Amino acid sequence: MKKIYLDYNATTPVHPEVLDAMLPYFRDIYGNPSSVHSFGQKTRKAVEDAREKIAKFLGAENPSEIVFTSCGTESNNFAIKGITFANKDKNCHIITSAIEHHAVLEPCEYLSKKFGVDVTYLPVDKYGIVNPDDVKKSITEKTILISIMYANNEVGTIQPIEEIGKIAKEKNIIFHTDAVQTAGKIPIDVQKLGVDLLSISGHKLYAPKGIGVLYIKKGTKLHPLLHGGSHEKNRRAGTENVSYIVGLAKACEIAERDMDNESKRILALRQKLEKGILGKIEYTQINGHPEKRIYNTANISFNYVEGEGILMSLDMEGFAVSTGSACTSGSLEPSHVLSAMGVPPENAQGSVRFSLGHYTTEKDIDKLLKVLPKIIERLRSMSPLWEDRIKAIKNVK
Amino acid sequence: MKKIYLDYNATTPVHPEVLDAMLPYFRDIYGNPSSVHSFGQKTRKAVEDAREKIAKFLGAENPSEIVFTSCGTESNNFAIKGITFANKDKNCHIITSAIEHHAVLEPCEYLSKKFGVDVTYLPVDKYGIVNPDDVKKSITEKTILISIMYANNEVGTIQPIEEIGKIAKEKNIIFHTDAVQTAGKIPIDVQKLGVDLLSISGHKLYAPKGIGVLYIKKGTKLHPLLHGGSHEKNRRAGTENVSYIVGLAKACEIAERDMDNESKRILALRQKLEKGILGKIEYTQINGHPEKRIYNTANISFNYVEGEGILMSLDMEGFAVSTGSACTSGSLEPSHVLSAMGVPPENAQGSVRFSLGHYTTEKDIDKLLKVLPKIIERLRSMSPLWEDRIKAIKNVK
Repeated sequence: MKKIYLDYNATTPVHPEVLDAMLPYFRDIYGNPSSVHSFGQKTRKAVEDAREKIAKFLGAENPSEIVFTSCGTESNNFAIKGITFANKDKNCHIITSAIEHHAVLEPCEYLSKKFGVDVTYLPVDKYGIVNPDDVKKSITEKTILISIMYANNEVGTIQPIEEIGKIAKEKNIIFHTDAVQTAGKIPIDVQKLGVDLLSISGHKLYAPKGIGVLYIKKGTKLHPLLHGGSHEKNRRAGTENVSYIVGLAKACEIAERDMDNESKRILALRQKLEKGILGKIEYTQINGHPEKRIYNTANISFNYVEGEGILMSLDMEGFAVSTGSACTSGSLEPSHVLSAMGVPPENAQGSVRFSLGHYTTEKDIDKLLKVLPKIIERLRSMSPLWEDRIKAIKNVK
Repeated sequence: MKKIYLDYNATTPVHPEVLDAMLPYFRDIYGNPSSVHSFGQKTRKAVEDAREKIAKFLGAENPSEIVFTSCGTESNNFAIKGITFANKDKNCHIITSAIEHHAVLEPCEYLSKKFGVDVTYLPVDKYGIVNPDDVKKSITEKTILISIMYANNEVGTIQPIEEIGKIAKEKNIIFHTDAVQTAGKIPIDVQKLGVDLLSISGHKLYAPKGIGVLYIKKGTKLHPLLHGGSHEKNRRAGTENVSYIVGLAKACEIAERDMDNESKRILALRQKLEKGILGKIEYTQINGHPEKRIYNTANISFNYVEGEGILMSLDMEGFAVSTGSACTSGSLEPSHVLSAMGVPPENAQGSVRFSLGHYTTEKDIDKLLKVLPKIIERLRSMSPLWEDRIKAIKNVK
């Protein structure tokens, strides 16, 4: 059975060109970039070339604004804790949103519990959008950081980052965005966005798991998360993951090259998927903004069934989808993102995220649309919720 | 010109078997281990199998005591900051040594400066060994952590970890060891050593740069360094670097298999190198303990010359060596390790670390012994220190 992967927001396979770019740096070019000798010089050059490419990809002013980390989670922790700890006054305040990834929410929670930092979690509207006016209103004299994600991982909604960036600049507050789900999908220009800090993760854009970047605008003062050697200009200690750094630069290059075509192709597939599901299966709704949404993401609520059941049934048919963030899978709580958007718990429980990518074809979508209605029908026939509904309809009649 | 790499303590090339083990996990088996579907289950199994192998390799009681990190530096930061932040009383004390790697010294410095933690830096003897009695004497009621490295990266001296482990246990204090330079070279048994926390780094044992482990003895309470998803049983958030985790497990397997033969072979080569240098070049001394020393490391002081000059000259002849830790290269300060051992600054400045490894052959050593005396002679002939010395000798005569 051909397996069909529709979970590209969870992770992506490494692009063949990325793998090719990385391979020489495992066995042939292996010096420690901090070493002075020629073995070290070669890998140092590879790291700095990659930094330059990624800086360009993100629209950074200077390559030195790019700091390599081990993942998006590290980038987010580094940004949030780094700014907080660099702030001399302990009595400080962070503004974030209720729909952030746990890699933002949890560091905030930790700083709040352990270090007494005050955190505001902004609400979102029914589409999952933060209101820039809410950001403005929440700013106090103690606010040191605003952290609002670029695109949401579960529903794909894109936030008004540029508008929030303007507010942050006006009020002279450091602005961080978690762009893990955006990088590689839509163009990013850190200067236009007005962000001081921006996180990206390699494995969401066809580079491997285990590499990330924190863009740090020149002049932004933050404490390192990892102390040790003087790597990354004293901002992130630890021997550089040369192969993955080279791979990430290649992935950015490919994304930039293919983005135009891929975005159109994938959007058409997603529209077909959404139209197909909404047309063929009753009691379904799309979660997220109709337009302001990453083109590859469709989060759909199937009423009267459990998302977990759909996921399992699809898995048995060879399809990989998810019920939300991979990082919280296994949790029985309804998604904090859908809850914040006001999706009723019974609908949130029946939601599934389809996230399309480079290898998704029209045939895959056709096959899904053939299989899915039967699965939903079967699951509903076993669901007490569905039975109650049928009875209710009969009673009305 | 064939390049000869003698800087294995800085980093190692990836072993061909390690690369083979990793390759399928880039493109073919790529699910997010946190995903519930079959793509995720496959990588989850790979991660857990690797955890089990590494637990066995380190003599851990349980695989859940193994937490994957992005490098040795992260493991050290995680251990030291994690224990400190988990400690409710802010008024606490850490014992470490003056010859630790910067990935231990700098987190301690940071905790001291930013959070007022009291840190004791124990002295070492002329061989670079910490006296367990000094550890005992330094313990106060506030001591929460002892962090003493297993083998020193610059001189190779092996510390009396088991003895210190007994003291720590007696006094009920958590004991961490940075085993980055030990893992893969000599057998490690965390239970026999009596450590609660132990750091290892992949790229020092023929796995790639960008993967590490922190062994955390069951029951040891420490705060995460990275907050986010519930990865690694809530101890280290961030999508697992599946390929490198698999690679590290393979590297441990290979190390265990080959250690007996390799240690004997490499020790013989090092002895040849040392005998050759000390026999052919006057005014040279070995730094580090004559026996209690990792078998691959020779740190040698060449009096009346600069180590940097030797390194550069050797590099031009195709040899890669270092003047100390790669992580502090470029620094003009004499090595903090040699200083702590009481090596006079003028001798420390002329010290070079030769670290041998898997691909080092007898021919390499022969070639080095042919080239090096001429280099030293040339450098000394240009050295004002050497000139002064010749004059002094003439004056005496």
